[in-house]
Amino acid sequence: SRRGIPEAIFAPGKTVEEVAALAETALDTTGRAIVTRIESEEAAALEGLDGDTTYHERARCLVVHEPGFEPPEISATVGIVTGGTADRLPAGEAAVIASEIGASVTRIEDVGVANLSRVVDQLSRLRELDVLVVAAGREGALPTVVAGLVSAPVIGLPVSSGYGHGGNGEAALMGMLQSCTTLSVVNIDAGFVAGTQAGLIASAIADARP
Amino acid sequence: SRRGIPEAIFAPGKTVEEVAALAETALDTTGRAIVTRIESEEAAALEGLDGDTTYHERARCLVVHEPGFEPPEISATVGIVTGGTADRLPAGEAAVIASEIGASVTRIEDVGVANLSRVVDQLSRLRELDVLVVAAGREGALPTVVAGLVSAPVIGLPVSSGYGHGGNGEAALMGMLQSCTTLSVVNIDAGFVAGTQAGLIASAIADARP
Amino acid sequence: SRRGIPEAIFAPGKTVEEVAALAETALDTTGRAIVTRIESEEAAALEGLDGDTTYHERARCLVVHEPGFEPPEISATVGIVTGGTADRLPAGEAAVIASEIGASVTRIEDVGVANLSRVVDQLSRLRELDVLVVAAGREGALPTVVAGLVSAPVIGLPVSSGYGHGGNGEAALMGMLQSCTTLSVVNIDAGFVAGTQAGLIASAIADARP
Amino acid sequence: SRRGIPEAIFAPGKTVEEVAALAETALDTTGRAIVTRIESEEAAALEGLDGDTTYHERARCLVVHEPGFEPPEISATVGIVTGGTADRLPAGEAAVIASEIGASVTRIEDVGVANLSRVVDQLSRLRELDVLVVAAGREGALPTVVAGLVSAPVIGLPVSSGYGHGGNGEAALMGMLQSCTTLSVVNIDAGFVAGTQAGLIASAIADARP
Amino acid sequence: SRRGIPEAIFAPGKTVEEVAALAETALDTTGRAIVTRIESEEAAALEGLDGDTTYHERARCLVVHEPGFEPPEISATVGIVTGGTADRLPAGEAAVIASEIGASVTRIEDVGVANLSRVVDQLSRLRELDVLVVAAGREGALPTVVAGLVSAPVIGLPVSSGYGHGGNGEAALMGMLQSCTTLSVVNIDAGFVAGTQAGLIASAIADARP
Amino acid sequence: SRRGIPEAIFAPGKTVEEVAALAETALDTTGRAIVTRIESEEAAALEGLDGDTTYHERARCLVVHEPGFEPPEISATVGIVTGGTADRLPAGEAAVIASEIGASVTRIEDVGVANLSRVVDQLSRLRELDVLVVAAGREGALPTVVAGLVSAPVIGLPVSSGYGHGGNGEAALMGMLQSCTTLSVVNIDAGFVAGTQAGLIASAIADARP
Amino acid sequence: SRRGIPEAIFAPGKTVEEVAALAETALDTTGRAIVTRIESEEAAALEGLDGDTTYHERARCLVVHEPGFEPPEISATVGIVTGGTADRLPAGEAAVIASEIGASVTRIEDVGVANLSRVVDQLSRLRELDVLVVAAGREGALPTVVAGLVSAPVIGLPVSSGYGHGGNGEAALMGMLQSCTTLSVVNIDAGFVAGTQAGLIASAIADARP
Amino acid sequence: SRRGIPEAIFAPGKTVEEVAALAETALDTTGRAIVTRIESEEAAALEGLDGDTTYHERARCLVVHEPGFEPPEISATVGIVTGGTADRLPAGEAAVIASEIGASVTRIEDVGVANLSRVVDQLSRLRELDVLVVAAGREGALPTVVAGLVSAPVIGLPVSSGYGHGGNGEAALMGMLQSCTTLSVVNIDAGFVAGTQAGLIASAIADARP
Ligand SMILES: Nc1ncnc2c1ncn2[C@@H]1O[C@H](COP(=O)(O)O)[C@@H](O)[C@H]1O
Ligand SMILES: Nc1ncnc2c1ncn2[C@@H]1O[C@H](COP(=O)(O)O)[C@@H](O)[C@H]1O
Ligand SMILES: Nc1ncnc2c1ncn2[C@@H]1O[C@H](COP(=O)(O)O)[C@@H](O)[C@H]1O
Ligand SMILES: Nc1ncnc2c1ncn2[C@@H]1O[C@H](COP(=O)(O)O)[C@@H](O)[C@H]1O
Ligand SMILES: [Mg+2]
Ligand SMILES: [Mg+2]
Ligand SMILES: [Mg+2]
Ligand SMILES: [Mg+2]
Ligand SMILES: [Mg+2]
Ligand SMILES: [Mg+2]
Ligand SMILES: [Mg+2]
Ligand SMILES: [Mg+2]
Repeated sequence: SRRGIPEAIFAPGKTVEEVAALAETALDTTGRAIVTRIESEEAAALEGLDGDTTYHERARCLVVHEPGFEPPEISATVGIVTGGTADRLPAGEAAVIASEIGASVTRIEDVGVANLSRVVDQLSRLRELDVLVVAAGREGALPTVVAGLVSAPVIGLPVSSGYGHGGNGEAALMGMLQSCTTLSVVNIDAGFVAGTQAGLIASAIADARP
Repeated sequence: SRRGIPEAIFAPGKTVEEVAALAETALDTTGRAIVTRIESEEAAALEGLDGDTTYHERARCLVVHEPGFEPPEISATVGIVTGGTADRLPAGEAAVIASEIGASVTRIEDVGVANLSRVVDQLSRLRELDVLVVAAGREGALPTVVAGLVSAPVIGLPVSSGYGHGGNGEAALMGMLQSCTTLSVVNIDAGFVAGTQAGLIASAIADARP
Repeated sequence: SRRGIPEAIFAPGKTVEEVAALAETALDTTGRAIVTRIESEEAAALEGLDGDTTYHERARCLVVHEPGFEPPEISATVGIVTGGTADRLPAGEAAVIASEIGASVTRIEDVGVANLSRVVDQLSRLRELDVLVVAAGREGALPTVVAGLVSAPVIGLPVSSGYGHGGNGEAALMGMLQSCTTLSVVNIDAGFVAGTQAGLIASAIADARP
Repeated sequence: SRRGIPEAIFAPGKTVEEVAALAETALDTTGRAIVTRIESEEAAALEGLDGDTTYHERARCLVVHEPGFEPPEISATVGIVTGGTADRLPAGEAAVIASEIGASVTRIEDVGVANLSRVVDQLSRLRELDVLVVAAGREGALPTVVAGLVSAPVIGLPVSSGYGHGGNGEAALMGMLQSCTTLSVVNIDAGFVAGTQAGLIASAIADARP
Repeated sequence: SRRGIPEAIFAPGKTVEEVAALAETALDTTGRAIVTRIESEEAAALEGLDGDTTYHERARCLVVHEPGFEPPEISATVGIVTGGTADRLPAGEAAVIASEIGASVTRIEDVGVANLSRVVDQLSRLRELDVLVVAAGREGALPTVVAGLVSAPVIGLPVSSGYGHGGNGEAALMGMLQSCTTLSVVNIDAGFVAGTQAGLIASAIADARP
Repeated sequence: SRRGIPEAIFAPGKTVEEVAALAETALDTTGRAIVTRIESEEAAALEGLDGDTTYHERARCLVVHEPGFEPPEISATVGIVTGGTADRLPAGEAAVIASEIGASVTRIEDVGVANLSRVVDQLSRLRELDVLVVAAGREGALPTVVAGLVSAPVIGLPVSSGYGHGGNGEAALMGMLQSCTTLSVVNIDAGFVAGTQAGLIASAIADARP
Repeated sequence: SRRGIPEAIFAPGKTVEEVAALAETALDTTGRAIVTRIESEEAAALEGLDGDTTYHERARCLVVHEPGFEPPEISATVGIVTGGTADRLPAGEAAVIASEIGASVTRIEDVGVANLSRVVDQLSRLRELDVLVVAAGREGALPTVVAGLVSAPVIGLPVSSGYGHGGNGEAALMGMLQSCTTLSVVNIDAGFVAGTQAGLIASAIADARP
Repeated sequence: SRRGIPEAIFAPGKTVEEVAALAETALDTTGRAIVTRIESEEAAALEGLDGDTTYHERARCLVVHEPGFEPPEISATVGIVTGGTADRLPAGEAAVIASEIGASVTRIEDVGVANLSRVVDQLSRLRELDVLVVAAGREGALPTVVAGLVSAPVIGLPVSSGYGHGGNGEAALMGMLQSCTTLSVVNIDAGFVAGTQAGLIASAIADARP
């Protein structure tokens, strides 16, 4: 796999047969197949794949490990921070991928800018992690607030919630790009990209550890 | 004046003579003239107007009171909250107008989402005011954070700072429209509108006071 | 509840079970649950909730009061002004929320800029109210016209009607932000926000009343 | 000239020499030259042209009639309606062109949606005219209101005033396209197009007159 | 009816009962009901209305005349020009409305800018008409070409065909607003507006006829 | 040089010294230097370059040939078609580059969609050429019309003229992308790209010639 | 057929009967009918057409040749280059049309910018072709990279893949318009246009061949 | 300093006096002052500041170290990769900041997607670095290509070059957000953010080193 990033199959727009064939190849060549944005019924249709199959419902991801596949483990931590239920899927996608890269993943949920005390309550947990993915929809201000409180690199993950002007994640993306604290950003709902970038940073840190 | 809102003359695109003529008429008919978005040199050129002239540098507003004009006074308070120097002009405009409507105006400066402790330090001052105008550029998250901490109505005033995607206040406007706490919003840099709306609310509150 | 604003559950994207669980919690902790953007069939599926259940069809809102819940009452009035049937849902949402905050709510319907005489006919009713939410789709000019005729604060509520260039409420939002009379604005179809902001202003007025 | 529309030379981006040469040709072939968007200094530099020269300052248009040129006259009226000083230039352009087409042009100024009584005061004048060009910047609601009160065809002329979101005439254009009364529209600041279209309609009416 | 424009009921977003009630009222007060954007099944559900019912399939319009209703007739002609099948519905809408206003309506079909000879073939028919509505989707160049060939006023009607960048009629609208021949324009797919504006102009011409 | 395309130096944003250094290198390595978007004064400052210098004023391009440089010559023709003066610079840029590639370049000017007879007058010249670059601003319809009349490949070159909605070439670009005749397109004002693409096609044709 | 380009029928928005009638006419007048963007079920419904019918599944195109129809053959090659499965349909459309024009078409698949070695592996095949259509979605960088490696003209075909900001092909289109190597571009998913333009260039080259 | 990120003063919109005052405070409290986006003349006006002053011309940054200030040094490397002169300023800003954070900074210049061999030539240097900032304007494809070749985390820095549709960095930003290799992104021209984010990652890596 390129850069230690497991290959993933993006399911939308592909037939179940196409996904199955691509997964088969991935299993044969890398010992693992990851399918993103796949609904549970379609995932069920892939059960025949030869290996250990896990369907991550809240992430809409299917992961298959060939019998005997040794998942990597790296000594670095990735935090995935979310505010509400709308952030679940992209954040879940990021968590699954970072986990498959081998990082130790911590979910920190229900923190939002409308209620700062919940952010403050999580401060010590937030400060313990090596890299943070902070997901947010609507106005997308949570990564800005979190990045102001921690020293680890923060990756903003804008989520396609909200409606009207700036809905579908455009306000969240813009806000993160304009953030007055230091962030880097991925595209709207791009949980896979956020998770792999977090995984790359975690790998670099883990590699540096003695 | 309509709705107790003093008429104001928007200077850009008008010659000094045109502004002077409009100000003259305003003085004659209402005892007061307010000119917004006027640079100090142009304001100086209007010194001949008959009355008490004040040029509010940080707000780029000129206010003239006819000799004997009795400025209104209302028993309600308006807070104008800002984060940085870029917010100065629109916030200043709001402050001048709310003041001319007769509200007691308090400026709360240097609070920003990148440094929450400064917001928390101002909490008791913020909670004492009747209406708040909260200005913010770049990602425009400050009104959301403030509105989550106070009970008074908050008017978000997006400021045309920032650069790149979402610059010129578009990210700030979008973020305020998507805010997950309750806000109403005015256009980018529309300090005059924010100030008059705050003044109308303050007037309604003052009128209700026994 | 934050700022006297009742918590509301935004139904789209949530399963009936998720909504039910959130409503249960809201009932237990605050004595009331409000669900917005919920269709009648889904609302029916929530009938088992323990309390007085009202489904506001024209507003797509479900309100549940625990037995013994004392709804607040505040001595201030909110007017909800609309032009046509397209404005019904966002305006209904605003009305339900303002009502639950305890304000006395008046609906003024069928006034539109294409027929000014209907606006003029309602003038005395419009002038009696403490705060106005004025909803409008297409070109969104009604709040501008109404705000020019009354002294109370006006909140513009753009509605996602219209088609072609500027459809889906974008023209209405832009027009309200550019209004040549003083308005503050909420996002397209954000009846909940308009209603809570009107409720906050009405509360401030009511609190000031002797 | 095409369709009875006098050719016009659009000055921006052309040197004075280029404008002079094009004007010379227009004079020679049609007896008349019209230059739009030309500042007074540049217009002065064209004084040497052989003919009767008029510089319309408020319209930034230069009109030259060859000695002996007989301007057309048509028995139909065009009204040009404006709200404020920002509408002056596009409206002036429309007036000059409609006039050169031969229509009898009436200017109706200082009517705006923020103050409906001024619109109502002009009602009988508005109802006497054959075609109306209604210019408006910011939220652009005036054409909608006027079209609801008259039977003549109304052409909406959006003006590039306003600032922030929807500024530079975009809100006005969108609003006119979404108008809930019948309008047709020209581009932002396209006074020349509004004036020629009004002139074509006036010509058709005049031709029909016995 | 306002301005001689028959009221029309815009069906989308309304239930059949709502449409029926509005049509009933229109019949009672004006002797006629027009429903636009209505599919044939819904139109069938309205057959019980008391009067002469015509469903214009290619225009998705339903017209009902009360027994004894005298449709107006005006002595002026409106041409409706189209290029392809995608233009059918908006153009049909324009034709039905202009017809109901009483104009004599001529359809000129299958002329497009990709094949100029078809335009030229229709030249004498095009030049005989009093007003033209020219519909076009994709790049929307047909009204520009037609307006360069005739003296009558041309109303451009952009159609929501096309795909990719500028699809859904945005390219057509922009192109018509930028036209280098004189046009006025209505919103994308706004056949009703184009038809009523053409009808108003035709009425003005007819009124002027001796 | 890559693909037979001469390297060109894009002057904006570079100092005269930087341009001179880059030109020097180009002369030394390829025997030729081409500078685009350079004003005459800056071009004059480059006169010291060792070689034959030509400044193409209408194209804002500077071309330098080292003494002894043999410009290529290919046996294929490129037509550059324009409507008005605004198209001059991008079209000039295309012409210079195609010429330097060695094609025989023909300019066809003053043809526009507002006056089809001028297009028709040029038909036989248009049909003789191997490749056409057709420049157009405002609504950008000329390439569509030309492509419907010839068999050679047409490259649409949108020009940043026009104002208001769709100004600065956006309407022209959109219209060309939506064209109902076959075109390929380059970016707004990208005369260099249009000229090199035309040159590549001409080269392929010339290479095929026996 | 115009310019040697076979007429094609764009199926979306047409009933099967309408498509059948248009195909019938095409067969009668040109000996061939091509239908684009047609799903397999609809294509099946057209089997009754008199002639040799081929449904190109991966291109969603139906081609019918009248008995005895002699497809053209030209001595020039067109390459269709793609990166992934999302590019399949537009690229397929381009391939079918170029083929019907008579060019010899080569598909080069699975080359993408994320893995440059695959591009390099194809270099000699890429360099043998007369014209290239390079399809790409998401960031659309493949045509830029390919054009830097070959001398033949490259037509960029942006594909509506991707999601979030710049999704639906907008990023790909923009990137190709900004390409730092010479490309011309067609609209998003406009495989038909890319194929016909490639065909026109191939025809010009073939015509030049001795 | 927050997160080890040195505070920086953004010069645009501030007077020299304001910048000087802020720099003075920064020097007093942190021993260092960094001013970004400052032209050389303004930087010269700040020479009076007490400390070691360096003006980075290619980065438009001024750095002042108080006498005795010990710049941090961290054992991690940051690569700054650019294609052309337009990328100079944002890339320079990133380099200065990463350097001030204490990272060892390597500049890799003149690599671009139009000429892949230059990228390949730098491969071993690229693969040695801990974090990469890859700047690119126009179509912004360089970070995608580089990220496909290295294992270190890549931060895409879009640059406001280019013109026409997608100019000013919008195409570059969109392309990076759509990248088919893993990247995180900062706003257009946000060299300061790219440099600090790279510095935070480098710091995390350095901290992990034994
Ligand atoms: N219709 C609505 N429009 C806007 N905000 C809403 C609406 N309904 C609920 N909310 C807000 O959204 C929050 C709940 O969001 P959620 O957690 O997604 O249910 C509530 O606290 C409200 O502040
Ligand atoms: N102010 C204006 N706005 C729009 N179109 C104009 C204007 N002035 C002139 N024109 C049109 O532009 C054409 C001349 O453009 P040009 O060749 O650039 O001078 C004339 O034939 C008019 O149709
Ligand atoms: N897939 C396609 N993409 C773009 N244009 C097409 C396509 N298929 C057909 N066309 C064009 O559309 C015209 C037919 O359109 P229509 O009359 O709507 O069937 C043909 O002459 C072609 O120029
Ligand atoms: N070139 C820059 N780009 C983005 N952010 C910057 C830049 N320079 C300084 N900053 C940030 O802006 C803040 C200072 O802004 P200001 O108060 O306007 O001087 C600093 O704390 C930095 O986080
Ligand atoms: Mg931090
Ligand atoms: Mg609050
Ligand atoms: Mg009012
Ligand atoms: Mg009317
Ligand atoms: Mg004409
Ligand atoms: Mg052709
Ligand atoms: Mg090449
Ligand atoms: Mg990599």
